[in-house]
Amino acid sequence: MADVAHMKWWGWGVPDHAFTADNKPKFAPFVYEVVGIDVTVPAPPPPTFDTLAVPASLLPADLGADLRAAVGENNVHTDDLDRVVHTYGKGVRDLVRIRSGELGRVPDAVVYPGSEEDVVAVVNLVTKYDAVLIPFGGGSNIVAALEALPGESRTVLSLDMGRMNKVLSVDPESAIARIQAGALGPDLEEQLAAQGWTMGHFPDSFTHSTLGGWIATRSSGMQSDKYGDIADITRGMRVVLPDGDVMVLRALPSSSSGPSVREMILGSEGRLGIITEATVNVHRIPEVREIQAYFFPNYKAGLEAMREISASDAAPSVTRVSDAPETAFSLATSKKSKGISKWVTKGLTAYMKRTGWDLDQLCLSFIGYEGSPVHVRYEKSLVNKIVKRHGGLGVGTGPGALYDHKKFETPYIRDFLLDRGALADVSETASPWSVMFDLHETVVERVTKKFDELGVRGYIMCHLSHSYHSGACQYFTFAVVASGPRALEIYDAVKQTIQQTFVDLPATVSHHHGVGEEHSPWIEADISPGGARVQRALFGAVDPGNNFNPGKIAHDGVPGISSNSTQP
Amino acid sequence: MADVAHMKWWGWGVPDHAFTADNKPKFAPFVYEVVGIDVTVPAPPPPTFDTLAVPASLLPADLGADLRAAVGENNVHTDDLDRVVHTYGKGVRDLVRIRSGELGRVPDAVVYPGSEEDVVAVVNLVTKYDAVLIPFGGGSNIVAALEALPGESRTVLSLDMGRMNKVLSVDPESAIARIQAGALGPDLEEQLAAQGWTMGHFPDSFTHSTLGGWIATRSSGMQSDKYGDIADITRGMRVVLPDGDVMVLRALPSSSSGPSVREMILGSEGRLGIITEATVNVHRIPEVREIQAYFFPNYKAGLEAMREISASDAAPSVTRVSDAPETAFSLATSKKSKGISKWVTKGLTAYMKRTGWDLDQLCLSFIGYEGSPVHVRYEKSLVNKIVKRHGGLGVGTGPGALYDHKKFETPYIRDFLLDRGALADVSETASPWSVMFDLHETVVERVTKKFDELGVRGYIMCHLSHSYHSGACQYFTFAVVASGPRALEIYDAVKQTIQQTFVDLPATVSHHHGVGEEHSPWIEADISPGGARVQRALFGAVDPGNNFNPGKIAHDGVPGISSNSTQP
Repeated sequence: MADVAHMKWWGWGVPDHAFTADNKPKFAPFVYEVVGIDVTVPAPPPPTFDTLAVPASLLPADLGADLRAAVGENNVHTDDLDRVVHTYGKGVRDLVRIRSGELGRVPDAVVYPGSEEDVVAVVNLVTKYDAVLIPFGGGSNIVAALEALPGESRTVLSLDMGRMNKVLSVDPESAIARIQAGALGPDLEEQLAAQGWTMGHFPDSFTHSTLGGWIATRSSGMQSDKYGDIADITRGMRVVLPDGDVMVLRALPSSSSGPSVREMILGSEGRLGIITEATVNVHRIPEVREIQAYFFPNYKAGLEAMREISASDAAPSVTRVSDAPETAFSLATSKKSKGISKWVTKGLTAYMKRTGWDLDQLCLSFIGYEGSPVHVRYEKSLVNKIVKRHGGLGVGTGPGALYDHKKFETPYIRDFLLDRGALADVSETASPWSVMFDLHETVVERVTKKFDELGVRGYIMCHLSHSYHSGACQYFTFAVVASGPRALEIYDAVKQTIQQTFVDLPATVSHHHGVGEEHSPWIEADISPGGARVQRALFGAVDPGNNFNPGKIAHDGVPGISSNSTQP
Repeated sequence: MADVAHMKWWGWGVPDHAFTADNKPKFAPFVYEVVGIDVTVPAPPPPTFDTLAVPASLLPADLGADLRAAVGENNVHTDDLDRVVHTYGKGVRDLVRIRSGELGRVPDAVVYPGSEEDVVAVVNLVTKYDAVLIPFGGGSNIVAALEALPGESRTVLSLDMGRMNKVLSVDPESAIARIQAGALGPDLEEQLAAQGWTMGHFPDSFTHSTLGGWIATRSSGMQSDKYGDIADITRGMRVVLPDGDVMVLRALPSSSSGPSVREMILGSEGRLGIITEATVNVHRIPEVREIQAYFFPNYKAGLEAMREISASDAAPSVTRVSDAPETAFSLATSKKSKGISKWVTKGLTAYMKRTGWDLDQLCLSFIGYEGSPVHVRYEKSLVNKIVKRHGGLGVGTGPGALYDHKKFETPYIRDFLLDRGALADVSETASPWSVMFDLHETVVERVTKKFDELGVRGYIMCHLSHSYHSGACQYFTFAVVASGPRALEIYDAVKQTIQQTFVDLPATVSHHHGVGEEHSPWIEADISPGGARVQRALFGAVDPGNNFNPGKIAHDGVPGISSNSTQP
């Protein structure tokens, strides 16, 4: 491979790291209780690469030679491992398929451009040879945006942006930075921090996702309440269009010059060309950064408090509240005498019982504050009044600090559970405040019913993760006990139940994971058939050869990934 | 006409109101000094409609009959006055042309839909008969977005949305309201206020512009620092697409479902169909609303203070600072013993002189605060420290209150000056903070040189009107002494100098007035040829017949409105 690090070919994250139940004494009993799985059984060894039957590369010799001439001999790879690493993202469907050796349409080559000129050259070769180009950042995508369509007969190239990972410049007066699209979260934050800046964008995938990927999927981070979603943060861009021309969108704070092309690239998932760099808002690292933890007597009270905060003069950097099942899960995954459970002391529990709390309804909330010490104190005073009005109870910064430290650990748990016969995945949405609670109730009710219908055990939990003026994001995590050939069928039934509920209520198909192929069956329900037609009209007109990540976002057919056709 | 009020056919605003120099004792001497015009000379009488040679309507009888059947006998108008009212917007070019009887391509009929069904029916007739449809809100557009292309051979229909002016519903929990696109600013604010809400969107054109127009041009208002630009405020929309289908974009706080169709409609100026309603963020009317006035020793200090405020913990609702020429103008337009000059007392002047202020460099600033009394006090304390650091001096709420009351008066002054031989117009832009001061210097320098080259007297002034994280909007107002046949040529030379300077520096062609035909020559320089090609690809694919406000935004040819072709 080129000098670009990748995640495990068969799972999430860095090769030598995994989720562990050791030192989390409550975890095994919790999992056994809720889904009947004994997680103390040792995991099977990881899959071995040798057992995979990797389809041969179909890269035509002349295209291969032209690509090597364009980007350099060492930057075009056709070896099996590199091609397999670039076959899928890291959705649970991807993890299941790759573990079972189901590889689908493996790319014929992986190309590592080192500059915008390289990208232009590759794009021109793609149209010249009528090939397919799929951009690849950190490979963390969970909506099947990185894989070729099944049965794609054209040459498939994966364009790994990993070599283009530099912070090019910072304009300190305007507080903006030019950054190459292939920079991973830690890459760019380190380079910015060296100059005293932060971009403030921290999605769960942070350690394994890139700036270009965030833009292409309209990502959000944990502190987006303060720093904005990636759509707000991204001011300028350079994009190699399908015709090989570099579109330059200068970094402007705002503009009224026609339909926003910037917003067309945001969320375009490679369909309108290749993002090579972006100019983004950056901020001085704040003097104080604090995450306070609170308990609410139930989820409704927590939601109401967050809603009231959004309508108030307060502007915290993080608003988060877990429902009761997620709170129970958090307490169960705490480390021995260190975790959140340390704060749920016997004294606190006794106090709560005495004052009428139903501990089964307990909801954990985190609210973040940033700025000067005076500002943080002021913001907290505004928030605390609202929290109190909704029966909330502050428990200090301890749990928040822990949350902060382990925030990028969560995705590892999916491999841990897969090893033990359960599929875990996430579905997030945004909706107006007025349907938030109803949405939560309906999802939980329908999914629970679906578990019963399927005759499987499962668990579903949720948190509000971002607040806006008119509504918020709710982030559902679910697990279902399933393995063997029926596993994905069971998963699909649950996942589809959730997505369908989102669009049935006025909620979006995805708040920050994008559409890909996984969510494309609901795009018409989300933005109406007319909206989907407008998106397709744009794709068809900008990429008439349908060479750039075809089949993503727009969908033909019925739910289920394999029914997607090659139509734009 | 239908039961829809319109502005004067020949000028800005309501028929019985005009700008006056009476009771502004410093105004006449000021104007005489800066451009040599004696404004005490009585104005000529307004133009009379009878003298106009209005081209006959070319509405085909069968289309006319079908339109009347679709929207009702009384809602299709072909009389000369109604057609002339809908021929132009209210740019200075429009005012000059209409006063001189130069009517161009007058629409063949004005259609007043009363419902979305009406709009669907009209749109279907437009494509059936291969006609041209131009949506019309309040008619306040100043970028030539409302006129048909010269020599348009197809039937031209103006679609006046004025009958669709209702607030349909408020969702108090989500703080959003469904409002019909034809509602004028005062219309919708009154209906919202009756339920205790405000949308908080107050552009200078507020009294004569509509929600649909704001969306179609990506408008900003005076309090957008707090409430957001219309692009932030607009959450959901219903749009009749060129194919007659109603696209329904539900009101969502955020979404990652592909390229944002919502953002494609924002700024689309009628090219993608007709907006019939929008669901927008609304807010409870704040307890306290205060506009504080400050003086800065020079413009650079003022800009620096606004930049520092944008990077601080403070979040005021209005940030505004005028350069020295605009400050002088404001002081000169103050009413006798009531205006801003009342606060520039002899005592204050003496104090400033004593402490080393150069009164010729004096810059007036307004900063707005909203929220609870505690919050307003806190925000002011944050801002005051920054203002002081940059040598600023607070002078209380008096001037701000006045500014607040007369804010919608400004556009009237253009007719007053036209009557006396001067053309006044505006050009606004947004740029990163790092080029703000340079941009200002360069525009003023180039325009002053252009005045000299043209051998005319002129005046140019500017204010920062909105702040963002990475930059701000600068709003230039200029006047040039010119009348007779060369007037527009002189105006063009000045206007083009400003627009060209914007795009030469990294600044946008327009911050909140849109593109229309007037700014279209610079669209490629603004968003690059690739960006312009993407916009055109979208227009061409969504409106293949080029029936919907053709020729706007996209431009073929060289600067100058009449060179625009009918290409998409």
